[in-house]
Amino acid sequence: MPKKVVTLGEIMMRLSTPDHKRFVQTESFDITYGGGEANVAAALCNYGLNGVFITKVPDNALGQSAINHLRRYGVDTQFIARGGKRLGLYFLEPGASMRASQVIYDRAGSSITDADASEFDFDKIFEGADWFHTSGITPAISDKGTALTLAALKAAKAKGITTSLDLNYRKKLWTADKAREVLTQLCQYVDMCIGPDATLGFHIGDTDVNLTDLKPKDYKTVFGHMREKYGFKYIASGLRESHSASDNRISAVIYDGSTLYQTKQYDVRIVDRVGAGDSFASGLIYGLITGMNAADAAEFGVAASALKHTIPGDMNHATLSEVEELVKGNGSGKIQR
Amino acid sequence: MPKKVVTLGEIMMRLSTPDHKRFVQTESFDITYGGGEANVAAALCNYGLNGVFITKVPDNALGQSAINHLRRYGVDTQFIARGGKRLGLYFLEPGASMRASQVIYDRAGSSITDADASEFDFDKIFEGADWFHTSGITPAISDKGTALTLAALKAAKAKGITTSLDLNYRKKLWTADKAREVLTQLCQYVDMCIGPDATLGFHIGDTDVNLTDLKPKDYKTVFGHMREKYGFKYIASGLRESHSASDNRISAVIYDGSTLYQTKQYDVRIVDRVGAGDSFASGLIYGLITGMNAADAAEFGVAASALKHTIPGDMNHATLSEVEELVKGNGSGKIQR
Amino acid sequence: MPKKVVTLGEIMMRLSTPDHKRFVQTESFDITYGGGEANVAAALCNYGLNGVFITKVPDNALGQSAINHLRRYGVDTQFIARGGKRLGLYFLEPGASMRASQVIYDRAGSSITDADASEFDFDKIFEGADWFHTSGITPAISDKGTALTLAALKAAKAKGITTSLDLNYRKKLWTADKAREVLTQLCQYVDMCIGPDATLGFHIGDTDVNLTDLKPKDYKTVFGHMREKYGFKYIASGLRESHSASDNRISAVIYDGSTLYQTKQYDVRIVDRVGAGDSFASGLIYGLITGMNAADAAEFGVAASALKHTIPGDMNHATLSEVEELVKGNGSGKIQR
Amino acid sequence: MPKKVVTLGEIMMRLSTPDHKRFVQTESFDITYGGGEANVAAALCNYGLNGVFITKVPDNALGQSAINHLRRYGVDTQFIARGGKRLGLYFLEPGASMRASQVIYDRAGSSITDADASEFDFDKIFEGADWFHTSGITPAISDKGTALTLAALKAAKAKGITTSLDLNYRKKLWTADKAREVLTQLCQYVDMCIGPDATLGFHIGDTDVNLTDLKPKDYKTVFGHMREKYGFKYIASGLRESHSASDNRISAVIYDGSTLYQTKQYDVRIVDRVGAGDSFASGLIYGLITGMNAADAAEFGVAASALKHTIPGDMNHATLSEVEELVKGNGSGKIQR
Amino acid sequence: MPKKVVTLGEIMMRLSTPDHKRFVQTESFDITYGGGEANVAAALCNYGLNGVFITKVPDNALGQSAINHLRRYGVDTQFIARGGKRLGLYFLEPGASMRASQVIYDRAGSSITDADASEFDFDKIFEGADWFHTSGITPAISDKGTALTLAALKAAKAKGITTSLDLNYRKKLWTADKAREVLTQLCQYVDMCIGPDATLGFHIGDTDVNLTDLKPKDYKTVFGHMREKYGFKYIASGLRESHSASDNRISAVIYDGSTLYQTKQYDVRIVDRVGAGDSFASGLIYGLITGMNAADAAEFGVAASALKHTIPGDMNHATLSEVEELVKGNGSGKIQR
Amino acid sequence: MPKKVVTLGEIMMRLSTPDHKRFVQTESFDITYGGGEANVAAALCNYGLNGVFITKVPDNALGQSAINHLRRYGVDTQFIARGGKRLGLYFLEPGASMRASQVIYDRAGSSITDADASEFDFDKIFEGADWFHTSGITPAISDKGTALTLAALKAAKAKGITTSLDLNYRKKLWTADKAREVLTQLCQYVDMCIGPDATLGFHIGDTDVNLTDLKPKDYKTVFGHMREKYGFKYIASGLRESHSASDNRISAVIYDGSTLYQTKQYDVRIVDRVGAGDSFASGLIYGLITGMNAADAAEFGVAASALKHTIPGDMNHATLSEVEELVKGNGSGKIQR
Repeated sequence: MPKKVVTLGEIMMRLSTPDHKRFVQTESFDITYGGGEANVAAALCNYGLNGVFITKVPDNALGQSAINHLRRYGVDTQFIARGGKRLGLYFLEPGASMRASQVIYDRAGSSITDADASEFDFDKIFEGADWFHTSGITPAISDKGTALTLAALKAAKAKGITTSLDLNYRKKLWTADKAREVLTQLCQYVDMCIGPDATLGFHIGDTDVNLTDLKPKDYKTVFGHMREKYGFKYIASGLRESHSASDNRISAVIYDGSTLYQTKQYDVRIVDRVGAGDSFASGLIYGLITGMNAADAAEFGVAASALKHTIPGDMNHATLSEVEELVKGNGSGKIQR
Repeated sequence: MPKKVVTLGEIMMRLSTPDHKRFVQTESFDITYGGGEANVAAALCNYGLNGVFITKVPDNALGQSAINHLRRYGVDTQFIARGGKRLGLYFLEPGASMRASQVIYDRAGSSITDADASEFDFDKIFEGADWFHTSGITPAISDKGTALTLAALKAAKAKGITTSLDLNYRKKLWTADKAREVLTQLCQYVDMCIGPDATLGFHIGDTDVNLTDLKPKDYKTVFGHMREKYGFKYIASGLRESHSASDNRISAVIYDGSTLYQTKQYDVRIVDRVGAGDSFASGLIYGLITGMNAADAAEFGVAASALKHTIPGDMNHATLSEVEELVKGNGSGKIQR
Repeated sequence: MPKKVVTLGEIMMRLSTPDHKRFVQTESFDITYGGGEANVAAALCNYGLNGVFITKVPDNALGQSAINHLRRYGVDTQFIARGGKRLGLYFLEPGASMRASQVIYDRAGSSITDADASEFDFDKIFEGADWFHTSGITPAISDKGTALTLAALKAAKAKGITTSLDLNYRKKLWTADKAREVLTQLCQYVDMCIGPDATLGFHIGDTDVNLTDLKPKDYKTVFGHMREKYGFKYIASGLRESHSASDNRISAVIYDGSTLYQTKQYDVRIVDRVGAGDSFASGLIYGLITGMNAADAAEFGVAASALKHTIPGDMNHATLSEVEELVKGNGSGKIQR
Repeated sequence: MPKKVVTLGEIMMRLSTPDHKRFVQTESFDITYGGGEANVAAALCNYGLNGVFITKVPDNALGQSAINHLRRYGVDTQFIARGGKRLGLYFLEPGASMRASQVIYDRAGSSITDADASEFDFDKIFEGADWFHTSGITPAISDKGTALTLAALKAAKAKGITTSLDLNYRKKLWTADKAREVLTQLCQYVDMCIGPDATLGFHIGDTDVNLTDLKPKDYKTVFGHMREKYGFKYIASGLRESHSASDNRISAVIYDGSTLYQTKQYDVRIVDRVGAGDSFASGLIYGLITGMNAADAAEFGVAASALKHTIPGDMNHATLSEVEELVKGNGSGKIQR
Repeated sequence: MPKKVVTLGEIMMRLSTPDHKRFVQTESFDITYGGGEANVAAALCNYGLNGVFITKVPDNALGQSAINHLRRYGVDTQFIARGGKRLGLYFLEPGASMRASQVIYDRAGSSITDADASEFDFDKIFEGADWFHTSGITPAISDKGTALTLAALKAAKAKGITTSLDLNYRKKLWTADKAREVLTQLCQYVDMCIGPDATLGFHIGDTDVNLTDLKPKDYKTVFGHMREKYGFKYIASGLRESHSASDNRISAVIYDGSTLYQTKQYDVRIVDRVGAGDSFASGLIYGLITGMNAADAAEFGVAASALKHTIPGDMNHATLSEVEELVKGNGSGKIQR
Repeated sequence: MPKKVVTLGEIMMRLSTPDHKRFVQTESFDITYGGGEANVAAALCNYGLNGVFITKVPDNALGQSAINHLRRYGVDTQFIARGGKRLGLYFLEPGASMRASQVIYDRAGSSITDADASEFDFDKIFEGADWFHTSGITPAISDKGTALTLAALKAAKAKGITTSLDLNYRKKLWTADKAREVLTQLCQYVDMCIGPDATLGFHIGDTDVNLTDLKPKDYKTVFGHMREKYGFKYIASGLRESHSASDNRISAVIYDGSTLYQTKQYDVRIVDRVGAGDSFASGLIYGLITGMNAADAAEFGVAASALKHTIPGDMNHATLSEVEELVKGNGSGKIQR
């Protein structure tokens, strides 16, 4: 009986230009579907867990196609609500070398933005669940999104389910003040916090530091404060040195209340960078839910994230054994015949 | 010095499935750009006139791409306003045989829906113009759309420019009552009315007839009433017998106040049916603006429309000489070496 | 609670040439997945039923991809066995006009050919099921295939489940004698027989007629004999006049023991002819399981089959309402905006 | 030991727009290679004969690609000369319905236009050959082309090889007067003349009739005159009724000095019309060289030509047995499993 | 009122193999349009200037497509002459790693090669213009090309317009002697010289050095001589270290008569290298025309050139702000959401 | 008269996912054809030799397509036997960065596996031949494959033809014991052995070392033992450091009985890694057969192999001059105009 993980969020149609073309050049879009929490559910199914995704999509062929994409990769979609006005979209222009990737979100008014908590039977959804994961995106898109996220977190905690939140602060969606206020409220119900940044109002000494510049020692300080204030069991963050749109170096840190662990670093040549953070989150959840300690779970997460960079689309189709091999250090890329 | 025709409306990105695929099957979309009045402007440029299109598009790469598409085909885009939230979209699943084509509009909240008349310098736009064309779509999408259309029609009439309106009643955009009210108001400023249907409240005897079932005699009666009430100089309508999504028979009628003329019929095997009505409208305008009589202009329009069915996309890329040849009866499709 | 239908068979990867190319011209294959009984399961899911498909696929990425395809379209794949040597393939070169489509099967040694009945827990599989459907293909491919089919039919009948068998005689897979022997045995457990042909040894008068030449009266005679001998509740057959690889006329006959009903005829312009027979079978099952009489079910089946011809791939993605509309006579193919 | 047929002409790269696009819409070209006499050589190889093609191509990767295309389909390319300035090109925009296909030739200055007879070792080329075929195209493109064609025909006749000439009059390449003068000279060395038209100066009564309007009786008269004047053994012509760019009706006539035979008619739905005439020529040659009488050879030729319309590209990839089946009347297009 | 820049040259259709294929492997070509001076005009439009391109293209659909490509990206094409025999083409096989990209030019006899200066109304063309740019390519292709370039330069100078010339010496088009003679003549009318090489006859000490090996000090010497002889206001040159077809290091030098400035270096991973030099030229012109000093203009130019390497096609679609950001040092390639 | 080289092996259809997609993501396969010995024959034709390939393919359109692929690239296919059950296939999922490429072989029961030596007329095949090359793959796939390989080697030696064997040990095809037994037998007839590994039972000291870890000194020892035991004239091996699926460093060693020569190293950015070993083998053969010494031949081989990594497909389309240039050190990848 595989572990059951429920995630809540939005699934969008992604429209990306082929062959490194810019938006102004393209005559077609490759399409796939993704969204932070949907990506987590799919990756967990991929590793053999029972991933359940809840959201709301319009009752048309585009909404159906999003559901079909999730089903294709094994996600349980039975609790997805249907209705509302439109499927959220995002347009992606993949970058190269010093040209950054461009994302144009077109998600205003999407079905999930006015989904009501009453459309989801949390009792049934969380029946037998082991983990609930969501992010700071849905609360950011609308007040109903905030209410829905809060309701889901409360329902999960009421059932004694472990919860995780990927902060995912997007400054175009809300102000820092609003984010801080809402996330502070949500964090009361969260066991593992991922990707903390300045949003929650933590500082090192006097400075509102850019967390990506932090030294391990600093992380421990900040994470310690966060743990103290919110009672998080784990705090983790993916780290990224972006040399160019083609080459990144990634790693991660995790703090379990006593030790700050920093993972190995991977130099990745990028095929598709989107969803790499979700791959880290899902790897982390997979590790912890299957009994790894924090360090091993973080290593699993960052290896999964490294592999995601080599796979087109938002979702991670690296297999369990591929991730495990990479954790062991086998990254030579030799042909597997 | 070519004649100058100004058109006002929305330009949308069109995303269509390739290779006869259904929405639930596709992994890519072919993209092009279109919209009734934009299609008219492009076709007129194609015939050598000076087509000017006015609209509002978002100030991002997608809005720019729509403008680029218009420029590519010669449309003067200098008066297009930039700003607003998003580019209108529509998704197209081309049908085949007895499977109908499906269109999913995703145009709510597009930039044109909250464009203000003050964003357009009509004095400059209409300087030296010979014709102004618009349709019943923009008034239907928002109150600001109605106001904008009305302002444009008034400005055109004030300058003594001939005006045309393609009624294009879309029942998903507004109610029949609202449509009737608004269109009645707009028609005061219209010289040529295209595609009249039940919207304007005309009846034959006691029945609100389906205009596609009308006999020529009936058209004359209805068109006569319309002419009387609104003072239209010309009233025209494309006719279509849809045998299947692959095969249609098309023709048209036009009334100039004295004679009702019915054009030749064309049996078309369909490559892409979208924009065929706009091709008729633009052919008609081309004919009248270059001095043809109503009958000849309608023949030109319906021949242009027939050719449009053989060309992918919303816009008509049939050349002037191809339309003229087809009017003359040369439709054998022999290879031109 | 939707009706549950179980089907048993093979799912193959289909590799087809794009753009009307011949095999000797192509540099790529479009791929999809299909197989008679898998197609039936998918179509039934499409109409809202609970379709369960059982088969065996290899434990590699190709087998997984076949499962993913089924999941995408809603099929319950939990009982599919994994293992064996390879995924069955078939290569398709779509024809046009007088050039016939070519199929090269490459299914020898596929996983299903040596699947054992013991690999399937029929008790669990048939729990709550309303219908079981299979065909004459699996019994034809190997002795184990025969044994598996027989075991499944027996298990279904033991549970009181309605059963159907699509004879689907393929002369390249077995001899007529062998087919007759095996099918005669299987038919003892079948409630509805589809696509009867000379296989079962019926004759009209002295002649082993080609069933496609039969007159309705003759069908009634033959179907009457079959019913008498095997106790079928329904016997149905799709009919096809193949004018060319591009244009066919289709209809169907069904016999319920008293009346022979012949459906409307549809002239179809073909996008993809493969799977049209499975569409008829699934439409028929849908009709009967939802309470239609034989005639209505056959009309539903043949309308579904007609729409299948307009959709690429083996599986039918026409929606329930599209089929219903076509049954009502609405086949004009007008754009649905 | 298969019969050996030598053909002489140009092979061009063909660049065609995909998906029914017009030139002004396309962002890519599908490429293949073709040319009247090259197509004949390839078709004959396809039927099992030894086809040898002679031409001159530039010594670059494009010339090599043209040769590779010929080799791929079995043509003996060992005698092709290398050098000159460029590979001839032609751009193709396939038509549809009443929109005619457009061809833009870009062959000026191609390598074959200044090929010298001395670059070809006719003694070796014609060693063991049974037939030599060429057309009126090469003589039309340059004086050196005329000289080369004449030299080849003379060399073939000197060896006692049967010769055929497809007149293929192209008014853009030369004047009618020049054509008449040159072709009259060439015809002295020709056994079978294909596609005769007004070029050679024949008239019926007083009128320079359009040969496509001729009645069989008239053909006999004209062909009789031609036979008398040039001593042709056979005169044949393909006939075409072009209903549209999508649908044609084809047949052919052949005259053997006593009887004028008219073949069956085929209604073809067109995938690719280019090279249909060359398919007729190659079918005719195949028939005659393998011992059929004129009527049977013409039936083989027209059936081959019909099948060509269903195959993309210039060359005919219908198999021998497919042509034979169609000659027998089997054109139902049923799937061949 | 944006600055107006006129450029003169050839626009060719570019046909490139997709997916790293070699010419002998491809079955399709991706097409775009480009040419040194056309690329400069398009890039300047992209930065908000008024780019006007003059050339001559054939009066067919291919010539129209080239014009449409220019219009799409905002170039003013109203002064382009129509006529002549053919559109110039070039075939591109993009390299990878140690396999060099291959270019096959097929531009002989193109329309621009026999364009006459009288076909261009320079008075009107240069009305209000701020800059005129051309290159050493057009003079190299024909004597009429030389005459046309000279006439344009003279007309520009007569109007007091700043002029620039990109030497672009192509040894396949003319001999070094002929190049030196013609370019020496043209340089009398040039304010800024780009890409100087051995063509103009300058030497350091005794050696006709390969300029790419020069040290900054040497550049200053050579550029000083050039300045002295021709009176150039600016002399600039892009520098390139080609590690492989996939990775290059680029920078540039510029000399304003007093200082030799060398820009930053960029390591670029190449998507498409063609047009990188034109991007440098257009960036330089943009910088100088908008008031930057030589050093800043060169930095802008080389940053623009770096970005061009990441964009498919000949033309640079990097935005003004992207170039500015890169100049500031922001080349991390992080996703822009 | 070019040298004649005969090779024996299997040619498979290769089906690879496009655009870095994983198997579970793809909706199409790019196809090409390849196989170790076929790749050698094609590369040798590419360098101007007469390459003859012998195998057996099924008598259907897929077998024909494989032959056509060989013919396209100049391989003499006249001795290929037709018949048997199916064409061998392999599915390729190209890797990237730390994600390894995946190969799924589907070659069981292919035509070559039950080809009989009697189907090949070795007398005729080896007439005038200079070299015979095969590998350890065909012997591994079936006992008939072993017998066929042995018969061919014996026939070649009997004619005094130089022979080479690429060991190519594939542990999925046979056990090490079986491999050792069969290969030991075959090696009696081999002049040059390529790619030696542990298969043949050689050890350094006590350890069954992984040959890729060997130092040059060790190679000499091992190769010396091999030479002693089997009488090989040359022993060579390609070396590869796999940094990732995107970047490899390659070189090679060769031993001629006196000197162990190690080639230059090349850092390659990988487009397609498959067939790189065959490129080394064919380069080596080309070098030796045209009179180079062992060191030069190995340099030619490894340069050819380096270039292969930049070319899609199994076969090497680098030209002779490209390889020669790279050997000379010209690997800058500058555009060749």
